[in-house]
Amino acid sequence: MSGRQVSGRLFGIGVGPGDPELVTLKAVRALAQADLVVHFAKNGSASQARAIAAAHLKPGTPELPLFYPMTSEHPRDGSCYREALRAFYDQTATTLATHLDAGRAVAVICEGDPLFYGSYMHLHVRLAPSYPTQVIAGVTGMSGCWSAAGAPIAQGDDVLMVLPATLPEPELERRLKDADAAVVMKLGRHLPKIRSVLARTGRLERAIYVERGSTQAAVMMRLADKSDDAAPYFAIVLVPGWEGRS
Amino acid sequence: MSGRQVSGRLFGIGVGPGDPELVTLKAVRALAQADLVVHFAKNGSASQARAIAAAHLKPGTPELPLFYPMTSEHPRDGSCYREALRAFYDQTATTLATHLDAGRAVAVICEGDPLFYGSYMHLHVRLAPSYPTQVIAGVTGMSGCWSAAGAPIAQGDDVLMVLPATLPEPELERRLKDADAAVVMKLGRHLPKIRSVLARTGRLERAIYVERGSTQAAVMMRLADKSDDAAPYFAIVLVPGWEGRS
Repeated sequence: MSGRQVSGRLFGIGVGPGDPELVTLKAVRALAQADLVVHFAKNGSASQARAIAAAHLKPGTPELPLFYPMTSEHPRDGSCYREALRAFYDQTATTLATHLDAGRAVAVICEGDPLFYGSYMHLHVRLAPSYPTQVIAGVTGMSGCWSAAGAPIAQGDDVLMVLPATLPEPELERRLKDADAAVVMKLGRHLPKIRSVLARTGRLERAIYVERGSTQAAVMMRLADKSDDAAPYFAIVLVPGWEGRS
Repeated sequence: MSGRQVSGRLFGIGVGPGDPELVTLKAVRALAQADLVVHFAKNGSASQARAIAAAHLKPGTPELPLFYPMTSEHPRDGSCYREALRAFYDQTATTLATHLDAGRAVAVICEGDPLFYGSYMHLHVRLAPSYPTQVIAGVTGMSGCWSAAGAPIAQGDDVLMVLPATLPEPELERRLKDADAAVVMKLGRHLPKIRSVLARTGRLERAIYVERGSTQAAVMMRLADKSDDAAPYFAIVLVPGWEGRS
């Protein structure tokens, strides 16, 4: 009845690593109440987060797919790439703000956990200062992978490092030498480099290669047994720290 | 009808960081089908995992509480402590094996994720080679904390380190200097040491102190603003890596 503007609410919702059953009750409830469901995808591909959340969306809920301006295989250190991404996030935030200003519950769905190497955080930093915002934690891709592999990853005083495979080889080597446990993410075309670094640092024997960890199509093997260099971008390598103890 | 022995099934179930709604659908389903629910607690305390899962347990399901032989505040490097723990896990595994041999579904519930710094892994390594076993990934305590704080933890090529506060001060300093993002776990009495290491490595200003991250009783503040040295064992410090980028 007052003239006060009703603000909407922003949700960053983690939908977990792939198995639709690894979605939390909190995520399911928020999805059912969303007025708009937003998801990221590479141009030409379906959103993985959308596929995971599909069973939990209220039929007829409006959706807004967001297509990255370039694929992840472009050189990421170029200023052109960074500028295009920044403009994409700016523009997307402006679009979402119009929905929030209209009082809508806007749910951005994310594979894994929203604030752990996710695209949602770019919208979060732009919108959370101005709108009521809730982040719903999710099961990370790496948890899905080590659970599927039944591999205890870290324990006690272990130091765990999460390393992007995109780092330069000398830096990867220096860091892996110094890690009790490690997760190497974003493998893709970097697999041969990771294999040789793990061999040089004495960690190849215990390294586990995992692809699509928590789905029916999961591929898991000792990295030492993998005979080719093909790996999707989201494949990961686990180096369990938990050795020789029980 | 055959004389073949029917084996039970072992479940390691992550029940998430504290909020009962941050339990996954898969965990809820497994809890409803469990014949025996097993949980760890310090002697004299109620199990946190049990409290989180309470709403999802089938009424009347038998439970087996496991009390650690000593508290976490004892010196952890003594051989006596290690021996007592080993005997405790051996004995517990033997007990669970009798239930598994009787064909029961045995659910070990764990705060956070079962294979990420959890006690379940000690039972897993003893029992998984002999019995059908399923690990159900959970939302980790650290995800619960950075989500509650709305703090993007890592992005792009960030290296994330998970460090136990129990490490010696020089080692913590060396590692934190080299981390883009960090999570320091198991704070307890180590808080003053962590505060001074973060100050010396230029990370105090962006460090966030979080206690009971995903519960109603959550405490969150800039570590620089925390005026006392009191911290529970499970409090953590987040050092977001995501700085000056958007």
